[in-house]
Amino acid sequence: MKARVTVTLKSGILDPQGKAIEGALKSLGVDGIASVRQGKVFDIELAATDQAKAEAALKAAADRLLANTVIENYRVEVLS
Amino acid sequence: MKARVTVTLKSGILDPQGKAIEGALKSLGVDGIASVRQGKVFDIELAATDQAKAEAALKAAADRLLANTVIENYRVEVLS
Repeated sequence: MKARVTVTLKSGILDPQGKAIEGALKSLGVDGIASVRQGKVFDIELAATDQAKAEAALKAAADRLLANTVIENYRVEVLS
Repeated sequence: MKARVTVTLKSGILDPQGKAIEGALKSLGVDGIASVRQGKVFDIELAATDQAKAEAALKAAADRLLANTVIENYRVEVLS
């Protein structure tokens, strides 16, 4: 079973990395980009074949390790 | 206009960061995770309101800065 966990900064949290990318794109001459925010994505292969069990494991993983829930949101998608 | 660029390692490219996460999840007692691969996600706000122009700008950004196309794949989604 495959799944994807996407971790993004909560709105209002400063993202200096995203700001740096914005600046770099401007100096490279890539036009039309107004703002950039960077996040993380985890492509996870699960041993479980049960959807509910898989979602529980992914939620535990995200809460305990993958995301800092003080400043980040996460989204779990089970793909197949 | 909002868009998301997702950058992931090509298959076959070693991902030591993903391996470390796998090990950490095991030692935290999160069961059922077979493998983890980490990627990056960029949430981009565009000035362009034209879908084709937006996609061209995003493709240029990904090719020139966001992804290392030797070892990474990227996917561009225009959300709205």
